[in-house]
Amino acid sequence: MSNKKNLTVCLTPDIFCNYNISDDSIIVVVDLLRATTVISTAFHYGIKEIMPVSDLLQAKEYLNKDNYIVAAERDALPMEGFEYGNSPFQYMNDDISGKTLVLTTTNGTKAINCAQDYHVITSCFINLDVVSDFLIHSSRDIVILCSGWKGLFNLEDSVFAGCLSEKLILSNKYQTNCDSVLASRILYNQAQGNLFDFLSDSAHRRRLKSLNIEKDTEFCLDPSIKSDIIPTLVNGKLVRD
Amino acid sequence: MSNKKNLTVCLTPDIFCNYNISDDSIIVVVDLLRATTVISTAFHYGIKEIMPVSDLLQAKEYLNKDNYIVAAERDALPMEGFEYGNSPFQYMNDDISGKTLVLTTTNGTKAINCAQDYHVITSCFINLDVVSDFLIHSSRDIVILCSGWKGLFNLEDSVFAGCLSEKLILSNKYQTNCDSVLASRILYNQAQGNLFDFLSDSAHRRRLKSLNIEKDTEFCLDPSIKSDIIPTLVNGKLVRD
Repeated sequence: MSNKKNLTVCLTPDIFCNYNISDDSIIVVVDLLRATTVISTAFHYGIKEIMPVSDLLQAKEYLNKDNYIVAAERDALPMEGFEYGNSPFQYMNDDISGKTLVLTTTNGTKAINCAQDYHVITSCFINLDVVSDFLIHSSRDIVILCSGWKGLFNLEDSVFAGCLSEKLILSNKYQTNCDSVLASRILYNQAQGNLFDFLSDSAHRRRLKSLNIEKDTEFCLDPSIKSDIIPTLVNGKLVRD
Repeated sequence: MSNKKNLTVCLTPDIFCNYNISDDSIIVVVDLLRATTVISTAFHYGIKEIMPVSDLLQAKEYLNKDNYIVAAERDALPMEGFEYGNSPFQYMNDDISGKTLVLTTTNGTKAINCAQDYHVITSCFINLDVVSDFLIHSSRDIVILCSGWKGLFNLEDSVFAGCLSEKLILSNKYQTNCDSVLASRILYNQAQGNLFDFLSDSAHRRRLKSLNIEKDTEFCLDPSIKSDIIPTLVNGKLVRD
């Protein structure tokens, strides 16, 4: 018998409930463009904790409260009445230091909340190295949960899942019987070296292009910051590990 | 404005309801290993019509009725009490000619039934050529619906979806804004030339291997028969188009 732990990739939160997941699994939520990149950026710039909330009304309750900043995005657009949106560049300022970020986005916060009964962490290229090291040494089953787009598969989260899967499988500590791991590794290997071009025809890249937020995309795919923080869900809030 | 019609790939029936599908779309159901290959084989050998049913009890009602044959498979195994299973070789006999096949399988019949409000056809390598010709000349939006495995993504249906997508996109009659089309084409291009080896690590290939039904797999991936029949769902039954 192999002592290797199991690696699974779930391509969209809408099929998460179809997997047979062991109770002590670690769920790695990915919403590369842009929620989990925003989360890592905000921690890097000193945010204390992040509350992922699924609906706008819930987020509104925190508007104008001391030590809270509230961010809302729907369909890749910031929402009226909210100071912050889903661009990582908005979080590159010291004003956020020590505060609580209340965050609601189209897909990422939904994915985080659907996995909340498990040990949930978030990942993106900013904290890829520390997350993969942590997982390799964890000796626990892992599910990489792609946030997708409104219940659908998306290319960017799957490619990232492939990149992380590659590291875990090559560590020799993980095995898989999951076709999504095989597929995402193939996609990643195809994309490697030029992720920006590879994703140029993807639905979300087109969406962001048409909104002129190419700069955000470039940052998410090749971030100029690296972080050792592993955002971890504890009692409904993401905190530094 | 482009006159091209839209091509979508849905990677598992469990997210089919998340797509915004135009009423006159054609849904191409794929369960390569083995239900849609069985369907094409049975039509090739003269079956009159096929009733895809979702549960075993419903299938049992047709046992021992004149001019019916009843086939049931769960978890890749034929079910006790049923004469036929999900191996295409069982249908290569003239006894089935003119009869109605009542078929229930783990994934394929579920996929067919979940799309039943649309124009549904089934495809596999046996009828790939005639199906792609038909679709290219149909001027209708298309969704290729992969049956997957128990609500999960699977590699073989996605690779077939990529193969069919490739033909449709290259015909210049179709456009896509669907990341699953992009991904499945990449997978197909990677697999091309040696599908059998490409799928060797896939979850279902391993399942079938352990049941010693490699011969079925070989046939499904590289069938020795070709058919011009497009199985089409009409009033809950698949008939020759």
